[in-house]
Parts: sequence; C-alpha cells; structure tokens
Amino acid sequence: MCSTNETIAAIVTPPGESGVGIIRISGDQAFSVGDVLFRSASAVPLAQRRDKSVQYGHITERNGAVIDEVLVLIMKGPHSYTAEDVLEIQCHGGIKVIQKILTLVLEQGVRLARPGEFTERAFVNGRIDLAQAEAVMDIIQAKSEAGVTRAVRQLEGKLSEVVNDMLQNLTTFITRLEVTVDYPEEDLEEIEVPDIAGSLQEMRDALENMLGRARTGKMIRDGITVVINGLPNAGKSSLLNRLLEEDKAIVTEVPGTTRDVIEAWITLSGIPFCLVDTAGIRKTDDKVERIGVAKARSYMDTADIILLVLDGSHRLQEEEKALLQEIKDKPAWVILNKSDVSSRMDKKEIEAYGFPVLSLSARTGKGIEGLQKALLQYVLSSGWNTGADVLLANVRHIEAARQAKAAMDRALHTLQAGLPIDLAIIDIREAWEMLGDITGQHVRADIVKEIFSRFCLGK
Amino acid sequence: MCSTNETIAAIVTPPGESGVGIIRISGDQAFSVGDVLFRSASAVPLAQRRDKSVQYGHITERNGAVIDEVLVLIMKGPHSYTAEDVLEIQCHGGIKVIQKILTLVLEQGVRLARPGEFTERAFVNGRIDLAQAEAVMDIIQAKSEAGVTRAVRQLEGKLSEVVNDMLQNLTTFITRLEVTVDYPEEDLEEIEVPDIAGSLQEMRDALENMLGRARTGKMIRDGITVVINGLPNAGKSSLLNRLLEEDKAIVTEVPGTTRDVIEAWITLSGIPFCLVDTAGIRKTDDKVERIGVAKARSYMDTADIILLVLDGSHRLQEEEKALLQEIKDKPAWVILNKSDVSSRMDKKEIEAYGFPVLSLSARTGKGIEGLQKALLQYVLSSGWNTGADVLLANVRHIEAARQAKAAMDRALHTLQAGLPIDLAIIDIREAWEMLGDITGQHVRADIVKEIFSRFCLGK
Repeated sequence: MCSTNETIAAIVTPPGESGVGIIRISGDQAFSVGDVLFRSASAVPLAQRRDKSVQYGHITERNGAVIDEVLVLIMKGPHSYTAEDVLEIQCHGGIKVIQKILTLVLEQGVRLARPGEFTERAFVNGRIDLAQAEAVMDIIQAKSEAGVTRAVRQLEGKLSEVVNDMLQNLTTFITRLEVTVDYPEEDLEEIEVPDIAGSLQEMRDALENMLGRARTGKMIRDGITVVINGLPNAGKSSLLNRLLEEDKAIVTEVPGTTRDVIEAWITLSGIPFCLVDTAGIRKTDDKVERIGVAKARSYMDTADIILLVLDGSHRLQEEEKALLQEIKDKPAWVILNKSDVSSRMDKKEIEAYGFPVLSLSARTGKGIEGLQKALLQYVLSSGWNTGADVLLANVRHIEAARQAKAAMDRALHTLQAGLPIDLAIIDIREAWEMLGDITGQHVRADIVKEIFSRFCLGK
Repeated sequence: MCSTNETIAAIVTPPGESGVGIIRISGDQAFSVGDVLFRSASAVPLAQRRDKSVQYGHITERNGAVIDEVLVLIMKGPHSYTAEDVLEIQCHGGIKVIQKILTLVLEQGVRLARPGEFTERAFVNGRIDLAQAEAVMDIIQAKSEAGVTRAVRQLEGKLSEVVNDMLQNLTTFITRLEVTVDYPEEDLEEIEVPDIAGSLQEMRDALENMLGRARTGKMIRDGITVVINGLPNAGKSSLLNRLLEEDKAIVTEVPGTTRDVIEAWITLSGIPFCLVDTAGIRKTDDKVERIGVAKARSYMDTADIILLVLDGSHRLQEEEKALLQEIKDKPAWVILNKSDVSSRMDKKEIEAYGFPVLSLSARTGKGIEGLQKALLQYVLSSGWNTGADVLLANVRHIEAARQAKAAMDRALHTLQAGLPIDLAIIDIREAWEMLGDITGQHVRADIVKEIFSRFCLGK
C-alpha cells in the first residue's frame, strides 16, 4: 500500500459474451471490499493471504445469495499495475453477471474508475513515466505486429532512456554554463563553451535523426494513410474498390467523418494501410463543393502517400497540370488509369514533375499487383520493423522533440556566435523542458488529465 | 495432470480494445508451452512453480523480441476449470497483441479450442455434469439478475442433486422389482409393489410440479416473450414504439429474422421483456401474406403473453371475433387502443372470452403505465425470483423431464393395474434414462457435442 487515493474499480474486459470477465479494484480498500463480497473455503482476510495468488470462491450478496463462481487475484502494492493494492475478480463473461458484481463493488463506497485512471495511477505513483503510460494505449490500439513491438519497447522505457540521457546532459550543460556566467573572471568560458557546443551539436543531430524517422514511427503506430485523389471520373473509386477486393476478408469499412470522404483499411503482408477516397480537387464556385475540396486538401497534408489518379486514355489536361503542380512537394505517385482502354498520356511529361508513375486498369485489375508491391516496398524501405530502433511515433512526442531541437539550434547559434551565454542557457532550459514533456517530468496537470482521458475504460 | 488430451488454447475475453485480454491454455503441455514463450525473473519451470500463483513477466518470440508485458496464472489440474493443467496469459487488451500471442501458442503444437471445449473438458473429466456445464452458458447469456441467480444455482449443482436423488430411487425400484420377477415364489410382489408405486407416485408428482414451474424457469432464463398481434391499423406498431420509448436507453433493437417480424427488448424493474411485433392474422389468398400469417401463428405459440390490440373506437367486428376465438386458450390480454378517440367497444363482450382487458392510447401514452404494471405483476406472480426453488429452464431438460414423467405414468398404470411387472421395469428404466440425460450420465456423444457447439468461443 502506498497511496491514500480513493479506491476505484472498473470492468477491464471488453463488453460482450465470453468465457471470462474481469473487474479490477485498486486502492487501499481493495482487499477489505473483497472480504465483504468474496466467500471461499478459507476465512483469512484477503490482505493477509499470499501476494500474487489466485483464490477460488464465490461472490455473494449480503443475504448470502451466490452471484457467481469466481477466481480472485491478489496483487499487493507497490508490485501491481497501479502500484496500489489491486484485487481482480475473474467471473463468467456475461454482461449481467459482470455488471452485478461491479454494482456490488461500487456499493461498498468504491468509485467507478475514469478511462485511463488505472494507468494514470501507475504514472502518478511513479511506477511508469508518461511515455510508458502512453505506450499502454498504443499496444491496445496497435494496428499491426510492428505496432505492438514498437509500443512494447516504449513501454519498456527505451524511448524514456534516450530522453532521460539527453535531459541529464542538458542539466549538466546548464550548470556548467551558469558557472562561466557566475565566475567570468575564471576564463572558464573559453574552455567550456566549445566543449558544450560540441556535445549539444551531437545531441541536436541525434534528435534530428529521430525526427527524420518519426514518420516511420507514426506509420507503424497508426498505419499508412494512402489518400486517393484526382478529377471526377478518373477512376478513384474504382481504384479504391479494386484495392479492397484484393483483401476483402480483412477489410473494415469505417464510414467517413464527412459524406464525401470514405475510409477503408487493407492489410498487405501484415502492414495496415488506410485508404482514403476524397473529393476531387478543382476550382469551383459551388459552396458545398468548396468545403469538400478544402477537406480533400487537409487529407492530402496528413497523407503518407497520395495516389493521384489520372485518366490515362487521354492527353494531360490543364486542370490535371494544376493538380500536379499543387502536390509537387508532397509524397505522391501518379496512377495512369484505364490502361485497358488506351494509353495516350505521356509518361515522361508527368515524370518531369518528379513523381513515380504507374499504369494500371482499375476496371480489369491489370497492374494492381504492381501498385501493391510498390506500396509495400515504400513502407519497408522507409524503415518498417526496424527492430532495435527507438522510434518517435506519438504526435505529442514528435512536437516536443521538434521544439527541443529548435531550442538547441538557437542555443548553438548563441554559443557559436559568441553572444551572451545567458541567452543560450534560456534556450537549453527550454529544450530541457520540452524533452521533459515526453516523459512527463514537468508536464502540466491538465495535459496529463487530457492524455489519460483518451484511454479506454478499464485501463 | 489427469488427462491425455491434446493441449488446446483460445482467447477467452471478448474481441475489442480493453485493459486486459486473456489466452487460456489447457492440457498436459500447458506449462511446457508457457516455458517456451514466457520470460520472468525466475528460471524455475512453470510446472514447478506454486499452484494458483500469478507470475509477472514477458511473452517473447524465439529471437528474444518482447511481444507484451503479461501476468500468467498457474492452475494445476485437477483443481482448475478443465480439471487439467491450465495456464492463463493476461496481456494488454489489444486485438493485434492477443492474436500474436495466440499465434505463438498455436505454433507450439497447441490446437485452437472449439467453442465450449474448455467446459466440455470439465464435463468429460468429471468435474461437472452436463446440467452444470449448460449452466455456464446460461450465466454468460443471462438477460437479468434473476437469470444469473438461477443459472448459478444450476452450476452449483442444485438441479443435479434433485435429479440424482430421483435416479438413485429409480435404480432401487428397478432392483427391487427385478427381485420380485426373479423370485416369484417368494411373494415379494405383494409387499413391494404398493410401496414402490407409492414412492414412484411421489416422485412423479414432484416432477409434475417442477414441469409446472418450468415456464417461469424459461422466462427467467430467456426473458419474457410478449407477442403483439391484431388487425392492420389497430395500432400494434404504435404500441410497440410507445413501450420502447418508455425505456429507450436500454433498448436493443434486433432486426427480425424475417422481414415481417420485429423484435425489441425492454427492461421493466430489471425484468427483460422481448417485444415481438408480428403480421396481423387474417384470412387471405395472398401467398406471401399467408407465410407471414403462419409465422405470426408460430410466434403466438411460443409467446409468454399475447397482446391482442383492437381498435377500441369502433364496435367488435367479425374478423376480431375470429381472432379472439383463435387465441382463447392462450395466455392473452386484449388491448383496447385509441382510447383518446372514443370507446365504442363493449368491454364485457370481450371479457366474456375470458381475457383481461386494458384500455389505452398508444398515441398519447395514456394507460401505458397500467399495461407496464400489469406485465410486471404477471411475471412476479408467476414466481419470478423464487429464490431457493430449483427451476427447470432449459428446453432440453424440460423435454427430458416431460418424457420421464410420461414413462413414470405408464409404469404406475402397469403397477396399479396388476399388469406384468416386466413392463413397469421397462418404463422405469426409460424414466431413468430420460432423467440421466439432464445430468449427462448416459447421454449420447453426438448430443454432448451438439450441446457444447452452441457455447461461445473461449468457454
């Protein structure tokens, strides 16, 4: 026992009929509440029974009526998920029976846990840091095996180790620079500054390297977003359907958040791709269509790959040239569709824009395999499944790292330009604060609250 | 360890994202498979660790890559769910991570468990009988707290005790009657037969009593089926909607198995009612409508309550009289709808058919509360929540009990009419066989298989 928090409880298995349902109780009262509800052959209070043991018995009402045959798991704090006393009740996985047992638990003055509250307690009680806590939800929501592996490494603290090393170095830099400011007469500046600048540069480069691979991390965590675009009738939807057909069994179609955006998942060799079919981009005076076009544009900004579908059976039109111009700095491929009809479009003219070009027929399916291989190749060459690497993947972490790098850049400029060292200290301190946000050392309470509120119930 | 069965495994928590997912492994290889996949601070093989203990560690791949942080539960046979060695792996409740761990388990030569196979093993290994095994699914599928209570009592063996007592008595009767046949010269018949007939009569009466309460048992197990019927435009669907509105938050609408039957659940004071809106019954030459009418008739046969909705704003019509006639032996109530328009129908004329009559307006809602109270009253007075009673609830059990009672009736007739005792022995043996089907003592293997195939995966 190491907390004076309220005792909380929640169902930690998904809703539905199944073999087993679990109710988790965490806090000082976990075992005494268990003593009221749980009957077994032994009369020894649960708190005095062996830690990490499984007990067989029944949950009963006050009048002695048996609610269910159960197992209970005793996990005494601090060696438990929350680092508090934890009692888990394993009952039969029926909706009514689980709800009834939860009700009996709550009637004992236990509060229903908020989403993420068990993990929040593990964080608040210092068992794990914020990056590790966030990894828990990443594991649960992982869309691929690589996603699980990456998240587990984060849960094990690999990312935190890297960040903590940097934090420790930054603290040392600050102390050493402050000494040169406090004792200018000692001429420490000439010895210290070049040394610190060198180390800071190394750290900044390491961070830049991590940021460079962050897109891979995000793809592993969230899947690869493939946005399909093009003029009307270019065959965008046919292409979507054709790609889905190839793997229909494991497709889950999620209705788009707007009427004009369709999202669907496919899995190629175990790698999850989210296909997004958006409204074609073209100039229009129609107010509603303009909203659709703006939405399509915003999807293009978050795309890992844009597939620009052109009707390859005619020559390049002005509207298409404008589109090519618009996406020219984005990770886009051009798909020349309708290869079964004819190929009138000049491949070289398009390649001049700098895009890879693939010809195919969405209608007949010819060339689709080539597109699938290219998608896989793109992902694998971008470092998918890089094993031992520490990968930034969470938008919050990436943003914090980006800001930390920017602050380091400013500090380096100050040191290298011989500007007042106080200025560099301010920037290094900011870098330290930003990096500390990742592991949550000095993150604001409301941000912590917001992070855990995005967890699922019972975690 | 007490079984030479193949080792089996399955996910025993429902699919979905949640705090915890569980993979159960049962059989001789459970712990050795665990030793391959599970890494923890201790190197002691799982089979040698403490029974009923929780172990913290990681599931790893052959190359050492960590798949997830887990707890494993060690439950050594015969003191486990299946009465075999059982290892449960508690991992994070993400779909990919659970599937990955299951895959690793299956790669060790473990077979995926069929639906119900864990419970089937508990039955085959003699830990529980068939009635207790069936209670497990009743608990999981229970639609109310009373349903859970009844099923738990069955799981605890209350029904089995009653059945086993009867089986033992029947065996004694058979032995004693066989002696009178084998030694006719001893004149045992005159002493034994009246005594046995008396005891058999008592048992038969007890069985009749249980069968009389079986409808209550079924209602507690399956919910109360309320079939709404009436002529078109009587306001059947309005009544359905009105009843649903009162409790909309906890309504789950299940699309009917046929286009013309709508099923929806409501809960009144914790008691689940399944409302069924069917096609109106009337003579018709239309082929499709005739199918609808036949379906409506079959629903009326399984109804716990029929609500016959009549338009109360006009006088009783010939078609309605025919309907009243048709359902006159069924548990029906007549609803005089449209009380907000006018009340032209003669209540007494309808009451003459023997039905309770309620006036209401589905449109305004006036009188609906009266109907709800009547529904509750009907259920409570029929013995809902009778606590200590042993209730037959499963159709299979009811049918077996019905046939056992019929066989006892025949045996009693033989004994009382002084017919050859051999005939009575045959019937008593049949009663014994029928009752034994309930607990599964001598039930056929294919029936056992069929029963467990209706279980959910992972149970």
